[in-house]
Amino acid sequence: MTCAPTTVAIVGASGYIGGELLRILLGHPLVEVAAATSDRFAGRRVDGRHPNLRGLTDLTFLPVDRLRTYDVLFLAAPHRETMRRIPYFLRRAGCVIDLSADFRLRDPAVYAKYYGVPHAEPALLATFRRGLPELWRDELRTADRISVPGCMAAAAIISLAPVADYGLAAGVVTVDARTGSSGSGTTAVMTGPGGRAGAAHLHAERSGALRVFAPTGHRHEAEIIQATGLSVRMGATGVEAVRGVQVVCTFALAAGVDEQAVRGAFRKRYAGEPFVRIVAQRRGLYRYPEPKILSGSNFCDVGFAVDEQAGRATVIGALDNLVKGGAGNAVQCLNVRLGWPERTGLEFPGLHPN
Amino acid sequence: MTCAPTTVAIVGASGYIGGELLRILLGHPLVEVAAATSDRFAGRRVDGRHPNLRGLTDLTFLPVDRLRTYDVLFLAAPHRETMRRIPYFLRRAGCVIDLSADFRLRDPAVYAKYYGVPHAEPALLATFRRGLPELWRDELRTADRISVPGCMAAAAIISLAPVADYGLAAGVVTVDARTGSSGSGTTAVMTGPGGRAGAAHLHAERSGALRVFAPTGHRHEAEIIQATGLSVRMGATGVEAVRGVQVVCTFALAAGVDEQAVRGAFRKRYAGEPFVRIVAQRRGLYRYPEPKILSGSNFCDVGFAVDEQAGRATVIGALDNLVKGGAGNAVQCLNVRLGWPERTGLEFPGLHPN
Amino acid sequence: MTCAPTTVAIVGASGYIGGELLRILLGHPLVEVAAATSDRFAGRRVDGRHPNLRGLTDLTFLPVDRLRTYDVLFLAAPHRETMRRIPYFLRRAGCVIDLSADFRLRDPAVYAKYYGVPHAEPALLATFRRGLPELWRDELRTADRISVPGCMAAAAIISLAPVADYGLAAGVVTVDARTGSSGSGTTAVMTGPGGRAGAAHLHAERSGALRVFAPTGHRHEAEIIQATGLSVRMGATGVEAVRGVQVVCTFALAAGVDEQAVRGAFRKRYAGEPFVRIVAQRRGLYRYPEPKILSGSNFCDVGFAVDEQAGRATVIGALDNLVKGGAGNAVQCLNVRLGWPERTGLEFPGLHPN
Amino acid sequence: MTCAPTTVAIVGASGYIGGELLRILLGHPLVEVAAATSDRFAGRRVDGRHPNLRGLTDLTFLPVDRLRTYDVLFLAAPHRETMRRIPYFLRRAGCVIDLSADFRLRDPAVYAKYYGVPHAEPALLATFRRGLPELWRDELRTADRISVPGCMAAAAIISLAPVADYGLAAGVVTVDARTGSSGSGTTAVMTGPGGRAGAAHLHAERSGALRVFAPTGHRHEAEIIQATGLSVRMGATGVEAVRGVQVVCTFALAAGVDEQAVRGAFRKRYAGEPFVRIVAQRRGLYRYPEPKILSGSNFCDVGFAVDEQAGRATVIGALDNLVKGGAGNAVQCLNVRLGWPERTGLEFPGLHPN
Repeated sequence: MTCAPTTVAIVGASGYIGGELLRILLGHPLVEVAAATSDRFAGRRVDGRHPNLRGLTDLTFLPVDRLRTYDVLFLAAPHRETMRRIPYFLRRAGCVIDLSADFRLRDPAVYAKYYGVPHAEPALLATFRRGLPELWRDELRTADRISVPGCMAAAAIISLAPVADYGLAAGVVTVDARTGSSGSGTTAVMTGPGGRAGAAHLHAERSGALRVFAPTGHRHEAEIIQATGLSVRMGATGVEAVRGVQVVCTFALAAGVDEQAVRGAFRKRYAGEPFVRIVAQRRGLYRYPEPKILSGSNFCDVGFAVDEQAGRATVIGALDNLVKGGAGNAVQCLNVRLGWPERTGLEFPGLHPN
Repeated sequence: MTCAPTTVAIVGASGYIGGELLRILLGHPLVEVAAATSDRFAGRRVDGRHPNLRGLTDLTFLPVDRLRTYDVLFLAAPHRETMRRIPYFLRRAGCVIDLSADFRLRDPAVYAKYYGVPHAEPALLATFRRGLPELWRDELRTADRISVPGCMAAAAIISLAPVADYGLAAGVVTVDARTGSSGSGTTAVMTGPGGRAGAAHLHAERSGALRVFAPTGHRHEAEIIQATGLSVRMGATGVEAVRGVQVVCTFALAAGVDEQAVRGAFRKRYAGEPFVRIVAQRRGLYRYPEPKILSGSNFCDVGFAVDEQAGRATVIGALDNLVKGGAGNAVQCLNVRLGWPERTGLEFPGLHPN
Repeated sequence: MTCAPTTVAIVGASGYIGGELLRILLGHPLVEVAAATSDRFAGRRVDGRHPNLRGLTDLTFLPVDRLRTYDVLFLAAPHRETMRRIPYFLRRAGCVIDLSADFRLRDPAVYAKYYGVPHAEPALLATFRRGLPELWRDELRTADRISVPGCMAAAAIISLAPVADYGLAAGVVTVDARTGSSGSGTTAVMTGPGGRAGAAHLHAERSGALRVFAPTGHRHEAEIIQATGLSVRMGATGVEAVRGVQVVCTFALAAGVDEQAVRGAFRKRYAGEPFVRIVAQRRGLYRYPEPKILSGSNFCDVGFAVDEQAGRATVIGALDNLVKGGAGNAVQCLNVRLGWPERTGLEFPGLHPN
Repeated sequence: MTCAPTTVAIVGASGYIGGELLRILLGHPLVEVAAATSDRFAGRRVDGRHPNLRGLTDLTFLPVDRLRTYDVLFLAAPHRETMRRIPYFLRRAGCVIDLSADFRLRDPAVYAKYYGVPHAEPALLATFRRGLPELWRDELRTADRISVPGCMAAAAIISLAPVADYGLAAGVVTVDARTGSSGSGTTAVMTGPGGRAGAAHLHAERSGALRVFAPTGHRHEAEIIQATGLSVRMGATGVEAVRGVQVVCTFALAAGVDEQAVRGAFRKRYAGEPFVRIVAQRRGLYRYPEPKILSGSNFCDVGFAVDEQAGRATVIGALDNLVKGGAGNAVQCLNVRLGWPERTGLEFPGLHPN
């Protein structure tokens, strides 16, 4: 690609992930946002759905079947719909970055087990590279089809990669994931349990909630196992925050592993990573990773605590589910793919307090 | 009525106001909850919708057209639907207490102006007594048709009654009302602006909001004017809380009115009222009325601050929109009507902190 | 004791636990609150600290050294201070119910390990009965010295008692505890890390937080181990809510244990318990225990999910940290001790929504 | 100044406003942050207090008396302390931008009335230019002493400038200001009412609050009157949010003013302003200005609603109290002063949802 700006289009741009893609890409100096699709809001202004973008763009939504061709296509469409229309999407751009769940798993049987339906395009699964630069940066430099992980999976995979790579854990790793309400998306109101309008995402029901919505076997578990090879069991709880994911991973230490070994593993694994910070301090208010200060940022903070006497450790990770757990991570993949500095367009550090 | 328990039925019992009626009436020692209706959830357990009632009742929802006759009928059905079916409801009980907006206004023309449709039963409007014991206790002792005020109206009417009765204000009284999210009800998801599924009540959109949804002319304004005779202008803002209404009323002092006169007016007006507390302190954290500590209680706290130099005053009121602004106030009316101690079933004082 | 009301005094009545004791005991029909102590606020009105009690009491705070004698003394004083003054307290009442951490552990060595200081009165430890009717009701009927468990410990002990009694777990039980901000108390501002004024409890820092303040080895772990005999490892996270504790306990199933066995164990263990509800549903919004709907109530909800294929289970418990995790549980112990109906004064069911 | 980076120092850098100055200035391409002072945290890392800055800076805090000289000095020190030390500060830089309240008012008598103490340096008051580019851009181009307005004052002044300039209002303008908790600062815990440790800012007390802390005559009133010449009366309420200010201003329309005139006044007044957006829509969720979507951004959104029949109007403004209400606005003033593009370093648009 040349010094002309790279043209990108965003499919499913009326949702929260789509809105974050717009926010980040409109501020990206090397990119031109050429189109943003939404069938439901076709013809309406983009900033009517994303009021934070007022004054920054005059784009209107395009119906998805009116897409032209672009350098890069970001897919933020709902699960299942993405795989159903993937042939069409692949024709619209040389590089496709998918943020849905449809191309995250390699094995169609695992997909069917966790998602309850057979995959519509099983042959394409292997053609997607997994979009997490911290684990697969080299593959991403040449990838034309990229599938970014789910928000909880991203947090857990980054948190557990040092555990896997350095053999820190013995036996089952229990992952307790906590997630804010924006992960449910803008259409949550219409897709409650049982297919009827659901009240789960009403403010009155979600405010102050600690809702264990998946005590065991959350879907993202499959991605974490695939990425780390660890024996992972994950449950998930919806919490008060709008944004943010935190994972708390507990496990028995492998023989001979002490606190120093754990610290060393994390330091070595993540030296030089632009968006991973190790947060494990003896004092202060923010001793461990916490999503509160990460809203809007692309950081994934990771930390750990080791109880040598009990032979156990806890690893903690946090990120913004819509940024490093979605749109920001996708743009980071784009930067890697195009050989740009990885931080481009992703410099916002988050707010404190917030 | 005799020493047999008074039988009550609740129409529209699956909503938030209906749930509060159930909570209060199930704990009321002189009442038996004989029926709770919901067409949508007919046959299902009441505690499936109101999980706080688990272990307290085995009631299931009845379809509304299966009502028998009861001593008292509480109507917590949606606006418009209530007036459409009112003849049926009036046949089901000797005493009907309505919590919808349909019978709050006396004048059909005012109703049409504020609600945008003509009233379905204009001849019945005058047959309802207004259900606020602080203003109309004597009328309520013999009333068989009672319409309780809206939550913001109740707060404003109680706050401004001393202002009206003692002539404290000159000119326009500006009422700034702030309201929690539960006022929107359980069906909010399906009734967004434009008749389509609305996102306004999604947690992600409402959390942390300060949403001026009615900058001027909120509907409850009409009730306040009707009750007080003051020249009131009301705007309304949706705030973060789930429960609670606060009204801040500002006005120019009438000639000769000073702080002592204001204090005297409030003290005299509300001496002996079981559910009105005057809160206007020089120090402390809760110097003025605040809904935070009123959740679940039937209190309406009122306070004031006078700036003699500027010739202006601020009157503040707070209550729980579902209790004193709805179900609790309705039960207080029942207690008045049946000659029971007014606090019966309404003793819960609220929580601090909360 | 006779038909004269039982007189009680509350030590440390200006704090949040003290306030809840006041709220509950002022509404208890068989009790007279004779005194409430606070050295710092001596002489001031009780409702100045607990504004929800306005209109319900004219009590003022007494200095602690001015206590007379009472039928029952509730101790809600800070840790360490309680054990230092315990001889004085024991002389003031025939029955003492302590809500501090000082007399929860039987073994002085365990106390020293978890609290970092030697116990001041090790000989007295064995004289206290543990105040959780669900586990030790019979002992409590004759106990004159009662120590109620910590809030997270209470939730975990009730959640895990069926696991222990019926041998459901193999190996380590991991407890993830989440707790609201009121557990830190009213003096939190002055006792930040390092002994200086701490910012941890500032609204701006705590709002929206998911703060892992104890990744491993939280102090309440010792109580849970003592009570259940299980191999428990507990971490704790501070969450957004003001009230509420939730524990999520995960473990490998013992050989031969399936879902039916788990369900049976919980049902048998808690049949007839007035304040334990089993919440484990296939659908609905509140399928598992959640503190949101428990504010102000004395319920401890418990639930479970079993993954037979993976051979693992998750047990979930929730309560209000100031009620069943403190003041309410203490009053339940009083009711047991005095042979009163256990629900007396504890009927408030909690609010939905909230 | 030359193409060498402009050196800046921040006094009072451990507080929330100081942290925002650091965040913005560390990302400002034309500036070098040369020093950040804090006596209390001298020698410690800046990112220990501002965890969002981890990985972005290795600065440590400097004691304030160790300042050298810089191109620009930002003062984020407490009120009163600033005026006491102002001679020292003025010697440390050619350009001083003060964010305290000490140099906002021109008239020492007005200062004494609103702040309750005489001003320490009355002769210097007139030497400061007021730091709001929307009103005083030309003066700022050459100003060497700049005092930026308070957060609520900034919102109200920007909201009311068109009202004042075009004569839209008759009589008193009532301003209802709502403010998040971060305005109280990091040291709030130690400065409660009465000079003792205060609980007002504890999460348990502030969460969900609607606290009318100044029913009338809030200090920022004086700034608004000074800037607009209108007859303003302002009360203030603390709300749940951490960040954000919203002002709701109501007034009677001047003779002959209708909705079109109001709209025209706002459009003309703010055409081309980089950080003022007019938000007054007929439909949608964010029809009026709301701080929720402004966190971290430098926008001040303003809107209005006119009730021609009643002859009254409501003007609404919103901003982030730490950005456009503090640090961001100060940097915008710097950009104006140094002839840089006004948006430099201030491009972050805010998040939705948030």
